[in-house]
Amino acid sequence: MNQIVSSFGTTVRQLRESQGWSQEVLAERADLNRSYIGELERGQAIPSLLTLKKISNALGVSLSNLLAHTERIAQTRLVRGIELTAIAC
Amino acid sequence: MNQIVSSFGTTVRQLRESQGWSQEVLAERADLNRSYIGELERGQAIPSLLTLKKISNALGVSLSNLLAHTERIAQTRLVRGIELTAIAC
Repeated sequence: MNQIVSSFGTTVRQLRESQGWSQEVLAERADLNRSYIGELERGQAIPSLLTLKKISNALGVSLSNLLAHTERIAQTRLVRGIELTAIAC
Repeated sequence: MNQIVSSFGTTVRQLRESQGWSQEVLAERADLNRSYIGELERGQAIPSLLTLKKISNALGVSLSNLLAHTERIAQTRLVRGIELTAIAC
């Protein structure tokens, strides 16, 4: 289950950087704390639905698209994990 | 922001009932408490990303589809609210 939290963090970092924003800028636009944004991006904090909504609004994407991006990252990591296991065996 | 929490609750209820499941059945499949499912459906609890994932797994839908359904309900309610305001004015 932590895979989804970690993939969400990567999603936030990717979308934030694609806007050219610092964590400070995203934090201000999402009405969240800068250090909390850092924790989210490192997969060290589990966001609530309200936090997800704030971040999707700030990044200008829908909630479902934000989660679809997250699911694609989680899926890619899962496949890579399987491939690495296959090589190791 | 509470609109999204309330719309998520309606989504859970609709998808659960479309399966013909009681709250107890969904709670067991999602590894959550029955009374917590009730709170979520009434919009009285704010789910975390992990809870969203548990519920999407239990209902057999992707996280992004679960949230897309939620956004459609929120959008419909927003439009109805605007229409009612227009009638009242």
